[in-house]
Amino acid sequence: STSSKRKTTLLKQLLSSPQLAFLMEAHSGLSARIVEEAGFHGIWGSGLSISAQLGVRDSNEASWTQVLEVAEFMADATHIPILLDADTGFGNFNNARRLVRKLEDRGIAGCCIEDKCFPKTNSLLDGRQQPLADIQEFTLKIKACKDHQRDPDFCVVARVEAFIAGWGLQEALTRAEAYRNAGADAILIHSKKSDPSDIEAFMSQWGNKCPVMIVPTKYFKTPTEHFKELGISTVIWANHNLRASVSAMQNTCHQIMSEQSLVNIESKVASITEIFRLQQDHELRAAENLYLPKK
Amino acid sequence: STSSKRKTTLLKQLLSSPQLAFLMEAHSGLSARIVEEAGFHGIWGSGLSISAQLGVRDSNEASWTQVLEVAEFMADATHIPILLDADTGFGNFNNARRLVRKLEDRGIAGCCIEDKCFPKTNSLLDGRQQPLADIQEFTLKIKACKDHQRDPDFCVVARVEAFIAGWGLQEALTRAEAYRNAGADAILIHSKKSDPSDIEAFMSQWGNKCPVMIVPTKYFKTPTEHFKELGISTVIWANHNLRASVSAMQNTCHQIMSEQSLVNIESKVASITEIFRLQQDHELRAAENLYLPKK
Amino acid sequence: STSSKRKTTLLKQLLSSPQLAFLMEAHSGLSARIVEEAGFHGIWGSGLSISAQLGVRDSNEASWTQVLEVAEFMADATHIPILLDADTGFGNFNNARRLVRKLEDRGIAGCCIEDKCFPKTNSLLDGRQQPLADIQEFTLKIKACKDHQRDPDFCVVARVEAFIAGWGLQEALTRAEAYRNAGADAILIHSKKSDPSDIEAFMSQWGNKCPVMIVPTKYFKTPTEHFKELGISTVIWANHNLRASVSAMQNTCHQIMSEQSLVNIESKVASITEIFRLQQDHELRAAENLYLPKK
Amino acid sequence: STSSKRKTTLLKQLLSSPQLAFLMEAHSGLSARIVEEAGFHGIWGSGLSISAQLGVRDSNEASWTQVLEVAEFMADATHIPILLDADTGFGNFNNARRLVRKLEDRGIAGCCIEDKCFPKTNSLLDGRQQPLADIQEFTLKIKACKDHQRDPDFCVVARVEAFIAGWGLQEALTRAEAYRNAGADAILIHSKKSDPSDIEAFMSQWGNKCPVMIVPTKYFKTPTEHFKELGISTVIWANHNLRASVSAMQNTCHQIMSEQSLVNIESKVASITEIFRLQQDHELRAAENLYLPKK
Ligand SMILES: [Mg+2]
Ligand SMILES: [Mg+2]
Ligand SMILES: [Mg+2]
Ligand SMILES: [Mg+2]
Repeated sequence: STSSKRKTTLLKQLLSSPQLAFLMEAHSGLSARIVEEAGFHGIWGSGLSISAQLGVRDSNEASWTQVLEVAEFMADATHIPILLDADTGFGNFNNARRLVRKLEDRGIAGCCIEDKCFPKTNSLLDGRQQPLADIQEFTLKIKACKDHQRDPDFCVVARVEAFIAGWGLQEALTRAEAYRNAGADAILIHSKKSDPSDIEAFMSQWGNKCPVMIVPTKYFKTPTEHFKELGISTVIWANHNLRASVSAMQNTCHQIMSEQSLVNIESKVASITEIFRLQQDHELRAAENLYLPKK
Repeated sequence: STSSKRKTTLLKQLLSSPQLAFLMEAHSGLSARIVEEAGFHGIWGSGLSISAQLGVRDSNEASWTQVLEVAEFMADATHIPILLDADTGFGNFNNARRLVRKLEDRGIAGCCIEDKCFPKTNSLLDGRQQPLADIQEFTLKIKACKDHQRDPDFCVVARVEAFIAGWGLQEALTRAEAYRNAGADAILIHSKKSDPSDIEAFMSQWGNKCPVMIVPTKYFKTPTEHFKELGISTVIWANHNLRASVSAMQNTCHQIMSEQSLVNIESKVASITEIFRLQQDHELRAAENLYLPKK
Repeated sequence: STSSKRKTTLLKQLLSSPQLAFLMEAHSGLSARIVEEAGFHGIWGSGLSISAQLGVRDSNEASWTQVLEVAEFMADATHIPILLDADTGFGNFNNARRLVRKLEDRGIAGCCIEDKCFPKTNSLLDGRQQPLADIQEFTLKIKACKDHQRDPDFCVVARVEAFIAGWGLQEALTRAEAYRNAGADAILIHSKKSDPSDIEAFMSQWGNKCPVMIVPTKYFKTPTEHFKELGISTVIWANHNLRASVSAMQNTCHQIMSEQSLVNIESKVASITEIFRLQQDHELRAAENLYLPKK
Repeated sequence: STSSKRKTTLLKQLLSSPQLAFLMEAHSGLSARIVEEAGFHGIWGSGLSISAQLGVRDSNEASWTQVLEVAEFMADATHIPILLDADTGFGNFNNARRLVRKLEDRGIAGCCIEDKCFPKTNSLLDGRQQPLADIQEFTLKIKACKDHQRDPDFCVVARVEAFIAGWGLQEALTRAEAYRNAGADAILIHSKKSDPSDIEAFMSQWGNKCPVMIVPTKYFKTPTEHFKELGISTVIWANHNLRASVSAMQNTCHQIMSEQSLVNIESKVASITEIFRLQQDHELRAAENLYLPKK
């Protein structure tokens, strides 16, 4: 049974399994619980979504402890493993290795660190410089994280931004290999093309040396079957809960604003009872029966 | 122009204006910004929604400083006033008056405090005890808050839970009058009936002594015109952004889970560009042009 | 070797050992490390000291998550177990049981919960009401904490305030027995007398049913040998690091203020090198050699 | 009377006054209050002391929001202005300008930003690289902070680390002039020599263009009269409260550990009553008389 395994072990197995796995984005305790209830086996704690939810930019405007607190609420609300998007590790190797320990304490199963510079720039922004980290500096950062974790199954994923930054296949492969040698549990190879050609090129040369993760936000039209054929380990649906909630809230706000009434809203939105259920009120009710004095 | 007024002043004017005003719920920086963009003049920082978003229960499971941090992100993301649902004030008069100062520091325009006991129980839960606070204790709590605020326009709304707790009209009126005398800027009269009869009864006797707010979550079918006729000051649409986002995320998760693809999702959700716009990336881009060295 | 044991196990053994044990107060990461270096086997995370250090009162003015963060810094800075003064549990049984889980996550070995009402009043304040919690309510709170902990060795100490609140021996014994039956790992029997007569009376009747802790802040003249004779398990030196630092800072401030010079200060205070040593700079230096690129 | 002036205005006047001013270090709400009571007109929120107190290193191991929270407790506990040691601004210009807004919200009067790289290295550590920030990048960071503040009197002090990093007088002067032109309210010129020769060299060339602050931790033997002659604006006694408290706690711990008794401790440390006084219990007592129901 999976329930007796640590979340770190579950994530490690999910990454290394021959079957294509999926991580669904969440950005709060509530969205994390919804992901789990939908049947996903893992959660992507998206930096873009978390920052957007907080109302700030995906540029390390929120402090790393503010992100940590969001992650903790997510872990507390769920039983499946969370891979946290940890940007660049929020500083140098020392900041990154300290983060790993704090994530372990909070029940986060792994973190993904990208080879750019602090403060980070979102990879999908057009017309921005995306300076890469020095390869040696980032390799040692990964090694510091791996050396510092206490749970052997905690996962450190190294995200290669070579394609994003305008470098070619060779740079991507060199970096991926260096990070793998430093102990990375998986490589996340990122691309902002609208077709999977970057990914295809990478996979054709990578030779399955360690698990590869992808984020098809821009090449969303590619059939998932193709990712299987390429030998991808894990696909991340990276920001769609956030985007779905934005549309829904915008529509709801506009309708209430214009109609000045809830009459046509009630049937479109989750009921109050459903909110209470998601908050697991039944557990509190049972506990109150046990632990509150009978009047 | 409203832009030169403090948020506290804007809220005070909104509450005391003869026109019916509306507050729309938000529970995060992002949802607050969406409320502002939709044209609302004020935001309700719902305790139910904030706790649900965090993944915990509306029973003071999140600490008051965790709620404060959510409120701060909301205030930073918006220019319209926020009335924060402050439950019972998170303790006694001393906790409540300290909260008021912290809310002032964070740019929150006012708080609503309800006459129940810490830790609170959500008013819409069925089959739960809803013990009311001692009337004198709560009256003095309101007075402590009013005496302690530094900005004369910071608003303290006293929420009367007499109907929720199963008491009748007389108890509601006695409490409302006591809280008004203690300095409350408005009375929120709460009801969980599916019709507005509690509200009607209260308003027929209240005599417009000070502004009255309502939360028609349960009596949502009542036409808004009727609230105007009753002389209500402000209607709170109390949890509908949260509920809209829950439905949207559940639907999105289920579809992605079953289709294992984003193909049919992309057109249904806000675009990545829209997320960047909501994060006000344009402001950062302009600032980078000013404040980053030219390479 | 103790180093392979969990901190919870170390605390449990310390409480249940036949030898008299000592806990020394700390209120920050720094003071906790100083306690460990002095050779103590355990740390008392004093609520009075933590609140005073923060600049607030011992009346639950700091939120429970702010206290939790102080405790986390203390645990991260040390290898010996910490017993956190958790006041009344910061609310009802639900707040208390949730706190236990968070303390486990942060590496805190146990918590002490006192049978008074939230927000708490410091026991040593004169002329204040010290209302006791309902005995059944508090007994169930202890039970909820014990039922909810995941680590079987996490310690929940029940603090009996019957003497503080002006009740007699019988009330103290009745409560101690109820709390022990609910699962408390130890009883802390508190007294504000300047002699140990309350403690003597209690111990003469208690019959060693479970470990008993004391806090001789007011009866500090009693020889420690007498506590051994009485069969006490653990003595808490509860606030003396804080009080020592207050005197030292007041004296230093006054001298610098009046002399407008550091000349006579340098030799009286710890050196900058000693501060770096306490911060364990040597570990960072070694890590930088390993994990920073050679320029 | 000073009491009606904003803390920012008080700090600005203190920096620009012809009289030599003094800032005394604090690292917590408690130490800040002690500084105020001793008669100092301003507080230095030392990064070294705050990090040491937390139990971490002065290398940006604590997040900027954790530092902010310490600063908030300090501001809440005092009426005199606080100049916060903000290291490098915790990232780039965007992190720094956002910090300024948050400091304004918390009642901090100004911040000092140093021209090194994130994460920072303490200037007094021997044998460490101390890479300076690019001069243009840092100049624009200062400008961003000044452009972003809302209170015109909020002070941004630019700390020149040229001497610390092994560069000479010319580099120090070039940087100081660039930062002054960018809007810095004062220059902090730092030196780790045991004599004031760096400071003398700088002041002989600087020509009093804007106020200059110094930190004579290493050249503590220099008579204060000499700083007046040099035309220094403000002297910072930068870490002596922390160092005094460390010695006091180490001595107290060792004595209690060896004597297993408080008998010889009580008279050496501040009384419990003095702790209650520092916590301003009298204010709460008076408030309880006003705001708690009479039983
Ligand atoms: Mg990201
Ligand atoms: Mg509510
Ligand atoms: Mg205590
Ligand atoms: Mg510093």
